[in-house]
Amino acid sequence: MSLVVVGSVAYDGVETPHGRVDRMLGGAATYISLAASFFTKTRLVGIVGEDFAAEDSALLAAHDIDLEGLQRVPGKTFFWAGKYSDDMNDRETLITDLNVFADFNPKLPESYRSEPYLLLGNIQPALQRSVLAQMSNRRLAGGDTMNYWINDFREELLATIRDWDFLLINDAEARLLSGESNMRKAAAAILDMGPNTLVIKRGEYGAMLFRRDSYFVVPGYLLDSVFDRTGAGDCFAG
Amino acid sequence: MSLVVVGSVAYDGVETPHGRVDRMLGGAATYISLAASFFTKTRLVGIVGEDFAAEDSALLAAHDIDLEGLQRVPGKTFFWAGKYSDDMNDRETLITDLNVFADFNPKLPESYRSEPYLLLGNIQPALQRSVLAQMSNRRLAGGDTMNYWINDFREELLATIRDWDFLLINDAEARLLSGESNMRKAAAAILDMGPNTLVIKRGEYGAMLFRRDSYFVVPGYLLDSVFDRTGAGDCFAG
Repeated sequence: MSLVVVGSVAYDGVETPHGRVDRMLGGAATYISLAASFFTKTRLVGIVGEDFAAEDSALLAAHDIDLEGLQRVPGKTFFWAGKYSDDMNDRETLITDLNVFADFNPKLPESYRSEPYLLLGNIQPALQRSVLAQMSNRRLAGGDTMNYWINDFREELLATIRDWDFLLINDAEARLLSGESNMRKAAAAILDMGPNTLVIKRGEYGAMLFRRDSYFVVPGYLLDSVFDRTGAGDCFAG
Repeated sequence: MSLVVVGSVAYDGVETPHGRVDRMLGGAATYISLAASFFTKTRLVGIVGEDFAAEDSALLAAHDIDLEGLQRVPGKTFFWAGKYSDDMNDRETLITDLNVFADFNPKLPESYRSEPYLLLGNIQPALQRSVLAQMSNRRLAGGDTMNYWINDFREELLATIRDWDFLLINDAEARLLSGESNMRKAAAAILDMGPNTLVIKRGEYGAMLFRRDSYFVVPGYLLDSVFDRTGAGDCFAG
């Protein structure tokens, strides 16, 4: 029994007040899979280009992550670059080169299709729906989304999450999706959209889990030093 | 054994997205005392004018709050008015009429001076120090402050909190006081200033308690409806 993870695999250029890295392994599916690999067998579905480094494949493989679903095609790997504000609460996107990710249309390997657990990273809702439809035996499926899909692909997104067991988003996204600023009201409205479980991430403040008749709030662990928060939400999801 | 509470007693005019009240009972010492009265005998030290309503004295007395230390003098009671932003995370001060509070120079009644517990609401640090000096038998003393005193009366404030057992401020004030944006570093720096216990309030996100060798984080209780957050931090302190 494995967890299937679908989403971006990328290279990131990140600048924070604490330093700068021009190119490092990134992407939602990468962070989710690496974190999840500490708890369960994980199978990755994604796409990379010819520039995807052998050492990065090796890192994923070293975590026993199944890479049969990671397509390698002609072209370059998705590249994102951004710069964080002084307090690291905001970030500015400097470069988004979709490259081979622009044509990502995930086809699950036969061996993945009967797995029970599915975590959909933040990608186009239609692709998330297509992946869900390929899983014939699922017991728990859900995932993430973002403001872009909530604002500009709302109907498609609603049709997608209707079939999810859980949705995992941050507080700003929950407000945007529900139209409610109060978190309990926002959660109630989102649980009416389909998922029976909603996880709302609050960055450094922690996270909240909502179900129809209960909720649970947990504060974030306090770190002494924070260098780079890229992928933190995806690692938490994993 | 009682808790002595020192601070403002005021009338507030408050406007939020949910409504507006032109004049209601407010003030840090009021909110602290009312909240603390549910747990212990409380003795209030403050100042009001001739316009302080009999029904407001009666409310405090009904909570068994000792009012011997509440001076009533010629003039008007401190009046504050403000308006909250749409998400209630910011507020704009519209009116600050100090009135009789401008000459507040707390002299503790003899019966208060041997009490063991002291909670100093947010007032001028020199006045907080003067009150502390009048308590001969204290076992736990501390209080609140704000950005104005941190920025413009820093030396006086540092000389004041040096003798406190605990300091209770919000996260923005902790950053301002310590010069550190990371909460663990901020807390360590503040514990070096005197208090052995630091409580950092995080608004809707909850609060954190720091001591030299440990810390504890608690999330905020989620309310279904929030109408007015004026005095919330003082109630929590109480």
